[in-house]
Amino acid sequence: MFDLLKTDTKTKARRGRLTTAHGVIETPAFMPVGTQGSVKAVSPRELRELNAQIVLGNTYHLFVRPGIEVVRHFEGLHKFMNWDGPILTDSGGYQIFSLAKLRKITEEGASFQNHVDGTPAFISPEIAMEIQATLGSDIAMVLDECPPWPCERDYAAKSAEMAARWAKRCKNAPRLDGQLLFGIVQGATFDDLRREAAEAIVQIGFDGYAIGGVSVGEPEEEMLRAVQSSEPFLPNDKPRYAMGLGTPPQLLQMIARGMDMFDCVLPTRLARNGTAFTSTGTLNLKNAEFAMDKEPIEQNCECQACREFTRGYIRHLIKAEEILGLRLITLHNLHFYLELMRGARVAIESGDYDRFRKEFVSNYKTRDVDLTTT
Amino acid sequence: MFDLLKTDTKTKARRGRLTTAHGVIETPAFMPVGTQGSVKAVSPRELRELNAQIVLGNTYHLFVRPGIEVVRHFEGLHKFMNWDGPILTDSGGYQIFSLAKLRKITEEGASFQNHVDGTPAFISPEIAMEIQATLGSDIAMVLDECPPWPCERDYAAKSAEMAARWAKRCKNAPRLDGQLLFGIVQGATFDDLRREAAEAIVQIGFDGYAIGGVSVGEPEEEMLRAVQSSEPFLPNDKPRYAMGLGTPPQLLQMIARGMDMFDCVLPTRLARNGTAFTSTGTLNLKNAEFAMDKEPIEQNCECQACREFTRGYIRHLIKAEEILGLRLITLHNLHFYLELMRGARVAIESGDYDRFRKEFVSNYKTRDVDLTTT
Repeated sequence: MFDLLKTDTKTKARRGRLTTAHGVIETPAFMPVGTQGSVKAVSPRELRELNAQIVLGNTYHLFVRPGIEVVRHFEGLHKFMNWDGPILTDSGGYQIFSLAKLRKITEEGASFQNHVDGTPAFISPEIAMEIQATLGSDIAMVLDECPPWPCERDYAAKSAEMAARWAKRCKNAPRLDGQLLFGIVQGATFDDLRREAAEAIVQIGFDGYAIGGVSVGEPEEEMLRAVQSSEPFLPNDKPRYAMGLGTPPQLLQMIARGMDMFDCVLPTRLARNGTAFTSTGTLNLKNAEFAMDKEPIEQNCECQACREFTRGYIRHLIKAEEILGLRLITLHNLHFYLELMRGARVAIESGDYDRFRKEFVSNYKTRDVDLTTT
Repeated sequence: MFDLLKTDTKTKARRGRLTTAHGVIETPAFMPVGTQGSVKAVSPRELRELNAQIVLGNTYHLFVRPGIEVVRHFEGLHKFMNWDGPILTDSGGYQIFSLAKLRKITEEGASFQNHVDGTPAFISPEIAMEIQATLGSDIAMVLDECPPWPCERDYAAKSAEMAARWAKRCKNAPRLDGQLLFGIVQGATFDDLRREAAEAIVQIGFDGYAIGGVSVGEPEEEMLRAVQSSEPFLPNDKPRYAMGLGTPPQLLQMIARGMDMFDCVLPTRLARNGTAFTSTGTLNLKNAEFAMDKEPIEQNCECQACREFTRGYIRHLIKAEEILGLRLITLHNLHFYLELMRGARVAIESGDYDRFRKEFVSNYKTRDVDLTTT
């Protein structure tokens, strides 16, 4: 299912290939986020044109709306959203803890009221697996509790222990034929808890391993440390997924630390605010300096936005709140993230990853953009 | 420039061909509205795939934002928005009277403050022509005053007389090489004023004639009457454009009354609210009845939305406020309007227009949608 094709010598970067029921994913891979059964502003046809290999669906959001019975009626998320490539679904845990109201966590599971209409619901590890079977994803995630940042050590330890028990229940629950199941390593910012969590999750045995509890507001160095303190205890022959990350430089740093898969709302979310990613950093296209600019967002970029439109026109669209503006920046940003991963794969194959990463990071400046809402 | 290919025998429907600097328009024709240099939610590439023959740009909106100097810098609206087909620009008159603040109309022109940032401005017939030359449209419109509905006869008469004097000044002003100029017939809801206005405008002589001052809140019968009382005084060898109209049945009724060109925000505006046009009438896709519906918006429709997606999925997208939902309905609605015009052209050619129109109108029901905001 996962072929480790090459490991870098100067870094821990890995070139791999994950085979799923709906197709092959070349790693390192970026997964566009299709929260509510749609990658925001983008059609499945455009995702194929962008060479997206896999999209992510958020179980919690789909559970709330349209509801699992609707997706069941449409025979799963692939048919519902008309995407026939691989889909990864999260378990819903993260959103239960970040969005839902009146949540109460017990050993059995999590009860909560959803953030849209307040309907009460209960999700256990077994129910999370049942829902993901109905969604029909190619990769399911175990249900976990995602502790906030900062988090007391005592709470983090108890939470990670329960997450491991929940992970085991997910593993033992009925699963869709051919569906892969990934475990999640928690442990907040405590190196020893991360190690214990990794060992406990690996002990249970999964098709892949995710680092959870990152990108929850912590400083970048804590994020990197959480990955570094978990990674050595993960098996080489399974893919590793750093959840909810990150900026382009962060992705390259994570790859250098042995991570293979990423999902992040930054390219789509920042696009809706007029921010574009380029190899020299972010551009806020709302800025007046772009009003008369006849260049594309990025020189030599092959995306539709850059082949067909100028910065000046896109700035006008964003200022005038025209939907085409955020569509074009979204296409560009997704193209940028996907191409960054392609570049990383090529660099790992040619033994040049360390230079590739350092050069990119040194050229890249985050300008004029608030990343704290990620 | 305008070839009248065929005139229907049972109705006044006409099959024509208008040649412009950027291409040929087969009439009857529907012109998608690109208010701010973008047909809302749709890319120029998609407009080409939809076989849109021409798009409309709103001079007032472009004057306010991004400003004419920006469009000049980009060498005109075609290059700015990356649309190389024909463009018609209105003169800005309608929006000055419906959107701008503190407007004051004198014989010389209209002064106003724009609705976005309140900047004061002045537009005269000559300035309107200069702006449209800078925009580089294929068809320019004369500056007119568009009286409100209802309107006192005395005001309507004085306004139409001034509109005729302004039309003459537009005709005499410098114009872009190859740019067509259409006159506008006003006269509110008074048959004799419509006739006088038509005769005065035709006397000046234009490349085409528009019926203005319709779709300003009047009942449908008044709208039809305004067209009927103007049309007999327009020459056969020039195209006629009914401005800002209308619903699908209205378009067919206007064609039967000798109109050739139409623009309307209904297909794009209603799409953003979840309303789709079909041959049996409008569907409000927000309705719960569509939640489990596996049919496309319309059976046998060849648009991208109908080829690839179900009503149930599109309903979910609209309910969840996903941009893809309004994109898909917009594509469908534009396709529907454009195909309706294609059907009308074929029916006129085959001498079958009266039956085509009556059959369509009798099958069509406006359901569950508020059209008064048009």
